Amino acid sequence: MHRVLIFGASGYTGLELVHWLLWHPEVRLVAASSDRWAGRPVCAQVPAVDPSLLFTSHDEVLAQVSAGDVAFLATPAETSLALAPRLLDRGARVIDLSGAFRLAAAEAYPQWYGFTHSAAPLLAEAYYGLPELSPLSGRPRLIANPGCYATAAALAAAPLVARDLVLKDAPLIVDGKSGTTGAGRKADEALSFSEVDETVRPYRLTRHQHTPEMEQTLSRLAGRDVLVSFAPHLVPLRRGLIVAVYAPARPGVTQREVDAAFDELYRAAPFVRVLTDRPPEPGPVARTNLCDVGAWFDPHSRSILAFAALDNLVKGAAGQAIQNLNLMLGLAPTTGLFPRAGGHP
Amino acid sequence: MHRVLIFGASGYTGLELVHWLLWHPEVRLVAASSDRWAGRPVCAQVPAVDPSLLFTSHDEVLAQVSAGDVAFLATPAETSLALAPRLLDRGARVIDLSGAFRLAAAEAYPQWYGFTHSAAPLLAEAYYGLPELSPLSGRPRLIANPGCYATAAALAAAPLVARDLVLKDAPLIVDGKSGTTGAGRKADEALSFSEVDETVRPYRLTRHQHTPEMEQTLSRLAGRDVLVSFAPHLVPLRRGLIVAVYAPARPGVTQREVDAAFDELYRAAPFVRVLTDRPPEPGPVARTNLCDVGAWFDPHSRSILAFAALDNLVKGAAGQAIQNLNLMLGLAPTTGLFPRAGGHP
Amino acid sequence: MHRVLIFGASGYTGLELVHWLLWHPEVRLVAASSDRWAGRPVCAQVPAVDPSLLFTSHDEVLAQVSAGDVAFLATPAETSLALAPRLLDRGARVIDLSGAFRLAAAEAYPQWYGFTHSAAPLLAEAYYGLPELSPLSGRPRLIANPGCYATAAALAAAPLVARDLVLKDAPLIVDGKSGTTGAGRKADEALSFSEVDETVRPYRLTRHQHTPEMEQTLSRLAGRDVLVSFAPHLVPLRRGLIVAVYAPARPGVTQREVDAAFDELYRAAPFVRVLTDRPPEPGPVARTNLCDVGAWFDPHSRSILAFAALDNLVKGAAGQAIQNLNLMLGLAPTTGLFPRAGGHP
Amino acid sequence: MHRVLIFGASGYTGLELVHWLLWHPEVRLVAASSDRWAGRPVCAQVPAVDPSLLFTSHDEVLAQVSAGDVAFLATPAETSLALAPRLLDRGARVIDLSGAFRLAAAEAYPQWYGFTHSAAPLLAEAYYGLPELSPLSGRPRLIANPGCYATAAALAAAPLVARDLVLKDAPLIVDGKSGTTGAGRKADEALSFSEVDETVRPYRLTRHQHTPEMEQTLSRLAGRDVLVSFAPHLVPLRRGLIVAVYAPARPGVTQREVDAAFDELYRAAPFVRVLTDRPPEPGPVARTNLCDVGAWFDPHSRSILAFAALDNLVKGAAGQAIQNLNLMLGLAPTTGLFPRAGGHP
Repeated sequence: MHRVLIFGASGYTGLELVHWLLWHPEVRLVAASSDRWAGRPVCAQVPAVDPSLLFTSHDEVLAQVSAGDVAFLATPAETSLALAPRLLDRGARVIDLSGAFRLAAAEAYPQWYGFTHSAAPLLAEAYYGLPELSPLSGRPRLIANPGCYATAAALAAAPLVARDLVLKDAPLIVDGKSGTTGAGRKADEALSFSEVDETVRPYRLTRHQHTPEMEQTLSRLAGRDVLVSFAPHLVPLRRGLIVAVYAPARPGVTQREVDAAFDELYRAAPFVRVLTDRPPEPGPVARTNLCDVGAWFDPHSRSILAFAALDNLVKGAAGQAIQNLNLMLGLAPTTGLFPRAGGHP
Repeated sequence: MHRVLIFGASGYTGLELVHWLLWHPEVRLVAASSDRWAGRPVCAQVPAVDPSLLFTSHDEVLAQVSAGDVAFLATPAETSLALAPRLLDRGARVIDLSGAFRLAAAEAYPQWYGFTHSAAPLLAEAYYGLPELSPLSGRPRLIANPGCYATAAALAAAPLVARDLVLKDAPLIVDGKSGTTGAGRKADEALSFSEVDETVRPYRLTRHQHTPEMEQTLSRLAGRDVLVSFAPHLVPLRRGLIVAVYAPARPGVTQREVDAAFDELYRAAPFVRVLTDRPPEPGPVARTNLCDVGAWFDPHSRSILAFAALDNLVKGAAGQAIQNLNLMLGLAPTTGLFPRAGGHP
Repeated sequence: MHRVLIFGASGYTGLELVHWLLWHPEVRLVAASSDRWAGRPVCAQVPAVDPSLLFTSHDEVLAQVSAGDVAFLATPAETSLALAPRLLDRGARVIDLSGAFRLAAAEAYPQWYGFTHSAAPLLAEAYYGLPELSPLSGRPRLIANPGCYATAAALAAAPLVARDLVLKDAPLIVDGKSGTTGAGRKADEALSFSEVDETVRPYRLTRHQHTPEMEQTLSRLAGRDVLVSFAPHLVPLRRGLIVAVYAPARPGVTQREVDAAFDELYRAAPFVRVLTDRPPEPGPVARTNLCDVGAWFDPHSRSILAFAALDNLVKGAAGQAIQNLNLMLGLAPTTGLFPRAGGHP
Repeated sequence: MHRVLIFGASGYTGLELVHWLLWHPEVRLVAASSDRWAGRPVCAQVPAVDPSLLFTSHDEVLAQVSAGDVAFLATPAETSLALAPRLLDRGARVIDLSGAFRLAAAEAYPQWYGFTHSAAPLLAEAYYGLPELSPLSGRPRLIANPGCYATAAALAAAPLVARDLVLKDAPLIVDGKSGTTGAGRKADEALSFSEVDETVRPYRLTRHQHTPEMEQTLSRLAGRDVLVSFAPHLVPLRRGLIVAVYAPARPGVTQREVDAAFDELYRAAPFVRVLTDRPPEPGPVARTNLCDVGAWFDPHSRSILAFAALDNLVKGAAGQAIQNLNLMLGLAPTTGLFPRAGGHP
């Protein structure tokens, strides 16, 4: 049994991690930090946890870390940036769910994250943990778990750019729709039920921090610079997101070619389902680590419409972090991730 | 006082019309047909209506029509196609809220509506009633009230194509998100609360019937063929829709130029508000005849992102029908449409 | 035209007042205070308002008050308690939407509101403005607008206690279910969409401040002490509430007798509809000043089940305040309250 | 491994059963009937199911039944009534999730279920499977799985009547609030999103079929006839219900006595949590087999307010059926029911 620890366990992502780790047969959760609930039992939030495990402070969790442990950071990017080097120094391995280690270029951080990166050498070392699309050699000791929107957009668009289905000189249009847990757990009038229900709200237009993540992944796959224009929207649901990727088709493309590209890329991926009979939607993949994808060629406008839907807290965060844990530990990719069959309703 | 009648008053659109007509100072609702409620008082559904007005059958309403009356058709397209010629023959004027008279080209009907048009000459005569964008000469006796998505997409995209802000050889991408009342009032498991809540569902991809409406309006404004790729999504709200229009910018375009284009086109439009400080969203315009629009130039991807939000039952249906009534009767455009200030929540 | 002013116009209740006052034919809104939006135009929130009207500070509104003006206080109880005497001293009339003047007994305030009442003499003078149930002599200069739950519970229970339909020695059980706007407009994690959606939350059990209001009204009508046990629940909707009142029936009671009691009491009440064919629910009265009531005798358990549904922001707040304004000014009770026919959806 | 089969697997309850059975370590799902999906793979609905398992017709499932098998009936009561005797005749054991075998008195069926019971002798034999409250001797071959509301109401009220905390001559008032999955999976305009969202709807007042179930359980525990007045409400959520039970307290009762009664009755019950610091609500128990209960003594009205919240598809249906399966097979009560820790959001 491997020892795992969570920093920042009281947000929606942190609690989701606790849920999933409970069922993982090869690990044992030994510590979880939470500013708000320090001193209280974890089972008050997640009933199935052993009643003796208490939430503690970051420092108390740090004090328990030994070499070989795996630490999940469900903390803000600045906090992750401070914690990760200290954990690695102690011989621990780190899976960071923030954006602190996602971008290879340190110089991109001021623009997209608003801070100067203080641990640039780690960026070169960090594995960007989108296992379906990121080649891996060896066993990383630092994994940057991708953003929820970035995961969905990359999975929807990868076949388009990797198989040359779209025009090269046009940016990819990404329209995202996400539920409220993606915005975190906090007191914010703009996230109150009265303000969110019965509306749809575009936000962070032209400046969402998942944009460079999408471009980084897709450019690597395409072997050229891929530009993304990303427009996220808040919709009145709690869990789940869907992205639509729109791009002009390369002349001559057919639906059959589109289908083949998706099938080839994802045939062996246990968590990606390629749908051809209906579009993806987040409901049926809620509380699973699945990402449903599908693409349609529109002969009228000669465009391709590709969609990906996932649960922002699972394949978009905690579930993908477990996939990455399995990579890090050399376990089968689905360990601990089935048969938690969620779905609608 | 002008006499008005409604055919098909028991759907969401029909009832919304009853609401708005109640406050209109220049008209009197004299008859309303409803299959399901024939014989019952209209005030059972809309409390403020005079208790003596009963829902009746289509035939009974037809029997009451006199020359000069205005008939609203909130009926399926095939029903409207059958009713309109009979009403015009009696000297009545018609505002049709279905798609039966929206497309100028009769030959487009089989593909998009699934029927052959039986009254093609009326298509040439019908005024496509999107007053902000459709030039009008004289007083039409037949008005085709636009589709909800078509209204929003045309209002968001018009400045882009009319002022040459976007590349001419690329299709416009239109991503639509609409609440459930847009799908009508019916028993349908796919529209049940259990199936709609907590998900987002793309539908009718590449074949939604509002696509040719958008292209017809925008092509006329652009003076060239504009192609649209339209992807509608069902979201868990009851009223309201938002569309995003994405297009590659013409080289050299600036945000200032975008702002000026919207300002010039809509400065005098009482029901279109151009937002620059926040994106449009449907909540704040719910239960009003307003359409909020706004556009952002993304220098990173050199794209334009334009948005329009409206209430699908008001500016997307009944409210716009009142605007058209005012045109038909030569009244001020806002007659009966203010001060019904709705908004959020 | 009478001059009216609003203190506290940026909450949900205050904005709702602005909406309704717009249509009132006998008054003119001359000032509105808002801490958060001071200096900004009111029309940014309520489009139909004259663009020249700006939100200002409490003090600036106070400075504009003249004798004969009507001031609405949509402020917290402590603020109302401080403002009302100052306004009355200047010869203004006051309609207070907080609880500051609702209870006749000053000594009840510490228990239910947590403060000692500093203006006890005004309690004797204040008219408790539930016009359907509160006798009025003369024209009050200070009106305490009832609480939303208290209005619904009193309207549902009044026929039961006034016509002796229930056992006298048993308390009335009141189960309330309300949407989120009843909790006000604020940043509060417990009111966030993620925490409110998909659950139902009992709150303030045995200590909700509307309990003594209900007892005060019902005791007066019954001519005896009526005890109430009130259990409110937060449900995932924005507007609207429903209360159920449960009580053991007096021996011999029949459904016919129950129906007659409701009919007699409310026959002449323009805003109360007695339903006998279906139970009340908040949807159909949303955005109207209506309260739907209905009662069922259960012969099996010999209990009476009475229900009342209303819009917490209208008949439960701003609409009832307009009813009270009409009383204060000697106008017809429905002035400015029809034909704003809201309803579902 | 025991063989289990499901009749009626395409409703919400049937699919939930499939989910839970997947994780049960001692059983194997060998057949599942579904009218709508016959011939299609079960994994299309529940991804983790073996792709070779297909939905079939009732008759095909019947043909596969052998002695010793356990059949779950997630069918309408009339269907269950027809199937159960045939299955028992073949030596199978039956867990019926309908109401067909819940009431001991055959003569109650016409009034509450609208049919005459055709298998009255089985009523005497059937075990009413609310394990926390129903004594069991031996291993039943026919189990009547309780109704969702009946489970919650009985768990909330049991300590009150079993420990004599309430007056004996007053009926128990039960106010229920349930999400839409409780109404089943079907095309019904009244269950459409447009009609359910933003309202709360009382239904089946004084005649809900779970009323006699509640009375049967509570009368047995009390050793006297307990009368219940039950008022269910539909609220806009998908999963989850909460009931409030209101009753006049026996003189002298204290909160401490109430707490002790709940603690004693449920101390050893793995699926019932007694809350004292906050009221139960359905969110935190969603997707778990937990029922949260709690009770408050109101000294003001001398009433007791007791609450129970559960997931209508789990502890109110499929999860409780697994509890009953464990009883039937002599397994530990929590087998297969942990650690599926659901919860909010």
